[in-house]
Amino acid sequence: MAVVIGVLSSKNPAERRTPMVPDVAKKLRAQGAEIVMQRGAGAGAYLSEADFPDVQWVDTADEVLARADMLWTVSPPDEATLAQLRPGSTVLGLLAPYGSADRARELAQKNITAFAMELLPRISRAQSMDILSSQGAAAGYQCVLIAAAFCPKFFPMLTYAAGTIRPARVLVIGAGVAGLQAIATAKRLGAMVEGYDVRPETKEQVESLGAKFVDTGVSAAGTGGYARELTEEEKAQQAVKLGKAIAQADVLITTAAVPGKRAPLIVTDEMVRGMKPGAVVVDMAAETGGNVAGTLPNQDVWVGGVRIIGPVNLPSNMPVHASEMFSKNLFNFISPFIKDGALVLDDTDEVLTGATLTANGEVKHPGVKQALGL
Amino acid sequence: MAVVIGVLSSKNPAERRTPMVPDVAKKLRAQGAEIVMQRGAGAGAYLSEADFPDVQWVDTADEVLARADMLWTVSPPDEATLAQLRPGSTVLGLLAPYGSADRARELAQKNITAFAMELLPRISRAQSMDILSSQGAAAGYQCVLIAAAFCPKFFPMLTYAAGTIRPARVLVIGAGVAGLQAIATAKRLGAMVEGYDVRPETKEQVESLGAKFVDTGVSAAGTGGYARELTEEEKAQQAVKLGKAIAQADVLITTAAVPGKRAPLIVTDEMVRGMKPGAVVVDMAAETGGNVAGTLPNQDVWVGGVRIIGPVNLPSNMPVHASEMFSKNLFNFISPFIKDGALVLDDTDEVLTGATLTANGEVKHPGVKQALGL
Repeated sequence: MAVVIGVLSSKNPAERRTPMVPDVAKKLRAQGAEIVMQRGAGAGAYLSEADFPDVQWVDTADEVLARADMLWTVSPPDEATLAQLRPGSTVLGLLAPYGSADRARELAQKNITAFAMELLPRISRAQSMDILSSQGAAAGYQCVLIAAAFCPKFFPMLTYAAGTIRPARVLVIGAGVAGLQAIATAKRLGAMVEGYDVRPETKEQVESLGAKFVDTGVSAAGTGGYARELTEEEKAQQAVKLGKAIAQADVLITTAAVPGKRAPLIVTDEMVRGMKPGAVVVDMAAETGGNVAGTLPNQDVWVGGVRIIGPVNLPSNMPVHASEMFSKNLFNFISPFIKDGALVLDDTDEVLTGATLTANGEVKHPGVKQALGL
Repeated sequence: MAVVIGVLSSKNPAERRTPMVPDVAKKLRAQGAEIVMQRGAGAGAYLSEADFPDVQWVDTADEVLARADMLWTVSPPDEATLAQLRPGSTVLGLLAPYGSADRARELAQKNITAFAMELLPRISRAQSMDILSSQGAAAGYQCVLIAAAFCPKFFPMLTYAAGTIRPARVLVIGAGVAGLQAIATAKRLGAMVEGYDVRPETKEQVESLGAKFVDTGVSAAGTGGYARELTEEEKAQQAVKLGKAIAQADVLITTAAVPGKRAPLIVTDEMVRGMKPGAVVVDMAAETGGNVAGTLPNQDVWVGGVRIIGPVNLPSNMPVHASEMFSKNLFNFISPFIKDGALVLDDTDEVLTGATLTANGEVKHPGVKQALGL
């Protein structure tokens, strides 16, 4: 029997992405799946019903949820949606697995197979499914656009008839996918760019983008592509070296995250106060507590002459391309398990099992269980 | 006797530029001029009193105006300031000469020598004084940052693990200083860029920045670096060819201006409605009526799925560098006429006389007189 894939329209106007784009719908249909979408889904990404010849459109979320064997979603289902999910069905998308013990419990109790793409193993084979990476690229790019728009200076060097403008100095802390994209974008715009990360293996990547690596002498290579937490002594050493680079920056972009934990506080109030008047800070970690003292999510905060911006859900600012990448990532994750239209999951598959939040009535992921005390 | 140069703080919080920066104050002081600034002037550009060791600070505008022989300003003096200007004194800056017959009359009646930098002859020797050009470069850069921030797509091509994102298509209409800077900035960000101008001599400039020139077959080479107005027939021909390029664009930036007149309406409502959903229009001519049907100054307007943004005073968004360029332009204009600290104007100087709005009790500029019916 053909698997029915459901997509709801977003209840949150600030979430403009859709997990289903026309190209992916077409491929799923070719695999024999059926797709049911709620009217309005895709509108945030400027997609109309006419763009989806392979989809059945229904008026209400109820109708989608009554029929869906598998729900694709860009954000965790809310209470009402959770309550209506069909027992035994599958949910696939960004589920904020560390965000709520109640949600994890309810998914398990309803016997939902929930794949949280945040939990995807960071192995080579899974790169084409890596939503954190694709959305991180969008976020890193957006950070630079925000910083450039608020910076009172040109990013590029400019020679005009009466002289030469020196390029702005941009410092990017955290050289994951988002940070590297921020570095690349700031370089494109012509700024002098420095990059920093506690993982020493990022030095080469930062330098390959034409940026200078800030060497603090602290190394914190961790597992799974993330850094481990630093000791107090290491933090102090990092602070001294970083402080100098921060004081010289016209723009500071911070992107350091630790999955399931508060973001590390890297830039102290003192460092912020040491920045130039007119300096701009964009703290991409605002949603998880911020890398910068004083950051508030979704707000601009002034500390003296320094503006600290705490943007949230940056990929939603560019919903066309963010949705395209998101949808392709989900397709690459699940399509090997759609056979003659039916969903046939394989619980020996390393990628599937790694991304499993709940299945068979249980919360499965060890890291999440530990973090949430389940 | 030393000339006293006065600078007021801006009464308009949206105007963050200052016509006097520390480097220029130092040079003027070295020439023997005195500089009196009102407390708060410079603050919008993140400059404090301590940054200006060569300046005397006073508390009120009254004190500045009582002492100043020459007022430097980024925008036309308002009624109150006009009333307080010392008869026989000099005013220097952007004065919106075509904006108000009353203002021109009052400047003349008070026997003010007013140099409106908008009127600067566009000759080689005056390039280093050209405020319209330096501020136009800032505006063109800002247009692209705004467009990129609102565009639902990446500007650059992006190769990620699940595929490739195609670069955004940017069309820039009007290839003056602002338009060329917009083209250069959009190219920096990795977009596919097309440029268009009615002046055929701009083709080479557009192409030298790596952009494609839209050939409509219409030529409107004018005088003074601006285009002449097109005939109705030429407009129709332009519309057909441009319409196609506009329909393909993800971003449209328009920068066409005619000094002292309403901006030419180039992009019709029909053309806007032919654009893709999610397309972004930034109309830099919003303040003078707009190049695009539907533009409103300082507002976002949606026409179907197309967002039309009508920014005003864009250089003020980057007050540090915009002020630096502005101040240097003014210095280059007036410093040859400061001798042993005294202002000695030369009414045989082509640049000085060309930029003269009022002198000796009269409105002098023929173009302004004609436009304002004086």
